[in-house]
Amino acid sequence: MLYVRAILNVKPDQRETLLEAAKPCIEATLKEPGCLEYELHTSLSDPNRLVFLEVWESAEHLEPHGKSDHMKAFGKVAAGCLAGPPRIEYITPAKVDVK
Amino acid sequence: MLYVRAILNVKPDQRETLLEAAKPCIEATLKEPGCLEYELHTSLSDPNRLVFLEVWESAEHLEPHGKSDHMKAFGKVAAGCLAGPPRIEYITPAKVDVK
Repeated sequence: MLYVRAILNVKPDQRETLLEAAKPCIEATLKEPGCLEYELHTSLSDPNRLVFLEVWESAEHLEPHGKSDHMKAFGKVAAGCLAGPPRIEYITPAKVDVK
Repeated sequence: MLYVRAILNVKPDQRETLLEAAKPCIEATLKEPGCLEYELHTSLSDPNRLVFLEVWESAEHLEPHGKSDHMKAFGKVAAGCLAGPPRIEYITPAKVDVK
């Protein structure tokens, strides 16, 4: 299992552009083999902090995602919308407890 | 390090009540020793899916949080706002890569 937190700081005037571009990417990603969760969230204390929460069966399942057409298309748009480089955290769990 | 994803499904008509109750809890929690991140997010595909993203220095640092006055006060309000039991994931990482 692999948990991913992709934290994006978007330029306020580019937020809608980014959200629109994310929709087809999310739809296509959810169909990728091994994709268990891929959902975009926004912080409630800072509307320009967006976070993709992702869960993949394995790092190998995530591998093709970055090279996919839908991710490349989203990346092209996102590049002009972000206020800085994204912070992407790949968390390989030793243990996951669910309560 | 401990990553926490607390996923809450809120009743639509109780969303504002929950968000208001969360504010003092978030403010107090960010002052707790070992709390590195504690931020409330909302899904962009489902506004009634709320997710606390938390990072703690260790599980031991998280321990007092659940018994804190501010968490108890929030819990009392949240109990009447949720559409079902929260799903709380405690992720102990074997490895974290940041790109």
